[in-house]
Amino acid sequence: MGVRDVSVEELLDTTKIEWINSTGPESDVVITSRVRLARNLKDVPFPHLLSRTQAEEVIDSVYRAFLKNPVLSKDARLFLMKNLSDTEKNLLVEMHFISPDLAKDDRGAVIISGDRRISIMINEEDHLRIQCIFSGLDPQGAYELASRVDDVLEEQLDFAFDERLGYLTACPTNVGTGIRVSVMMHLPVLTMLKQVDRLFSAMAQLGLVVRGLYGEGTESWGNLYQISNQITLGKSEEDIIQNLLSVASQIISSERQARRNLKGEERLRLEDRISRSYGILTNSKLLSTQEAMGYISDVRLGVDMGFIKNLKPEEINNLFITAGPSYIQEVFKKTMTPLERDLNRANLLRQKLLR
Amino acid sequence: MGVRDVSVEELLDTTKIEWINSTGPESDVVITSRVRLARNLKDVPFPHLLSRTQAEEVIDSVYRAFLKNPVLSKDARLFLMKNLSDTEKNLLVEMHFISPDLAKDDRGAVIISGDRRISIMINEEDHLRIQCIFSGLDPQGAYELASRVDDVLEEQLDFAFDERLGYLTACPTNVGTGIRVSVMMHLPVLTMLKQVDRLFSAMAQLGLVVRGLYGEGTESWGNLYQISNQITLGKSEEDIIQNLLSVASQIISSERQARRNLKGEERLRLEDRISRSYGILTNSKLLSTQEAMGYISDVRLGVDMGFIKNLKPEEINNLFITAGPSYIQEVFKKTMTPLERDLNRANLLRQKLLR
Repeated sequence: MGVRDVSVEELLDTTKIEWINSTGPESDVVITSRVRLARNLKDVPFPHLLSRTQAEEVIDSVYRAFLKNPVLSKDARLFLMKNLSDTEKNLLVEMHFISPDLAKDDRGAVIISGDRRISIMINEEDHLRIQCIFSGLDPQGAYELASRVDDVLEEQLDFAFDERLGYLTACPTNVGTGIRVSVMMHLPVLTMLKQVDRLFSAMAQLGLVVRGLYGEGTESWGNLYQISNQITLGKSEEDIIQNLLSVASQIISSERQARRNLKGEERLRLEDRISRSYGILTNSKLLSTQEAMGYISDVRLGVDMGFIKNLKPEEINNLFITAGPSYIQEVFKKTMTPLERDLNRANLLRQKLLR
Repeated sequence: MGVRDVSVEELLDTTKIEWINSTGPESDVVITSRVRLARNLKDVPFPHLLSRTQAEEVIDSVYRAFLKNPVLSKDARLFLMKNLSDTEKNLLVEMHFISPDLAKDDRGAVIISGDRRISIMINEEDHLRIQCIFSGLDPQGAYELASRVDDVLEEQLDFAFDERLGYLTACPTNVGTGIRVSVMMHLPVLTMLKQVDRLFSAMAQLGLVVRGLYGEGTESWGNLYQISNQITLGKSEEDIIQNLLSVASQIISSERQARRNLKGEERLRLEDRISRSYGILTNSKLLSTQEAMGYISDVRLGVDMGFIKNLKPEEINNLFITAGPSYIQEVFKKTMTPLERDLNRANLLRQKLLR
């Protein structure tokens, strides 16, 4: 079969990542929108019960099914977890192509499309996790593409589906539509004003979940928050998307209002913080990921508020990815001490900002 | 008589200040050397006992005596404390032309020479305090010039002198030679390594005193320390200078050794701190004096250690003066809120660094 197992090196070229190099709707607050559909193959045990051979068969059949559509699968790549180093797997997590869970299991794989908008995780918790990521606030766009991928695959594969429940999944929380819609929001001013906690506890009551930058259980580095639906059953995909859209719109308004409300000394102090962050990013010799994320967040806010004029928002998206812990290791193709990572990260970010 | 009372505005032009625009011996650690001679007029009460009229007569006679030497007094200016605003007096303190004590008394005055190397305080604690300030470690140079001024004045004035005690002064601690020799040292690495306290307590036993940037009781902003002799009686001027020189040499060695001993990660972390300080100085929108002094100290160290190559040490001397609290107010000729000062200071320092 046509399994092409290639190096993750080509993924380092962020110019190929569609969402990084464009700005979608409301991009002053929303970095990306993502839709994930959970699907399972009929009459095949759920992934955690699969033998290695069975797991390979699943990968094989999914990849083959995807290749049937020459448009969507153009320049697509298949990566088998068993062939990747830890750093490579971490890089895929940092770039949001796979979940930390997939990285932990040798039996998994991921297909990544040429424009990097589609990634299909295979043998994660479910046989298939079709993910689409779009720039800005555009969950509909992401959902439409994910549905197209879903349709293409369903022409070749039999999905486990129950007339009453909907799509069957390994974990009952995903049963039904199997959809998870999420938006990555940049909320620096609400964070600064300590209004996020109150906001997020209100969101829990609306069936939404907030996560940090790198998914479940991670911290919100760089003032970035992933907000997604919790419930997949008993609501249509459209309702779920509409619900998230309406909550996201309120948060966008709050963040914008908070930015506008900063006046006089408060505004000046923020501009000072932002300018210093730019100064540190363009001068420091050592930068940890977490620290870098904070400064990049400031610079992004500075661009959005008009304090910084020589940078485009897309360039900052790029920095968020570049600052990740594994990106640096992959660029230099060696295992590094944390100090070496901090040194190379500072160099790389400086070069990217000053070029 | 020829009392010319002029604006302090011309003092803002730091290009005229000899010690700022040159580098003397050991200038990687020693910023300036200063000598001060205390003198009093025979048969005139000490300043704190003078009437206003008597005080004016003292000023008059000292200024007249100084003007007798056309070389030393070329472009010299006389400033009467009673005619200066608080900001103007504070500026003279910041620029090391007068002591905080002189600024407090309306009856005082100061003569400042054209090259700013000589300042003669009149009616401070003593009738005359002849001060000379030289770049780098050069107390002999400063002493020679102060002696010349002393000789010139003594040709016209009768100084209170006792064959056994030497020069008589208002405070017994200055009796004898009436000399105070001091060096302004920049000790960033000894400070970072927390070795200064131990060093300075050892120095107290050698009859030396350590003060902060703006004299007695002030803090050591910018890692700058003034070290001076305590004792003026029972030793010759030459011995006092030699004693200070020998202690200063040891401290210079210690600071240099400490700088050289920084290797590997420690050195890299210092370079990172220095580079960030440069980044903050060239980007921030608000800077307090104390904070600015810290960053300027880092940049100066960066220049001395070769981390920063596009600046000369003299340029940093200039920044130390520019960062002072009163300098900004005088430049903009208005009373400012602390926030406005911080804003204008940040702007001015940025312009000076990036020009």
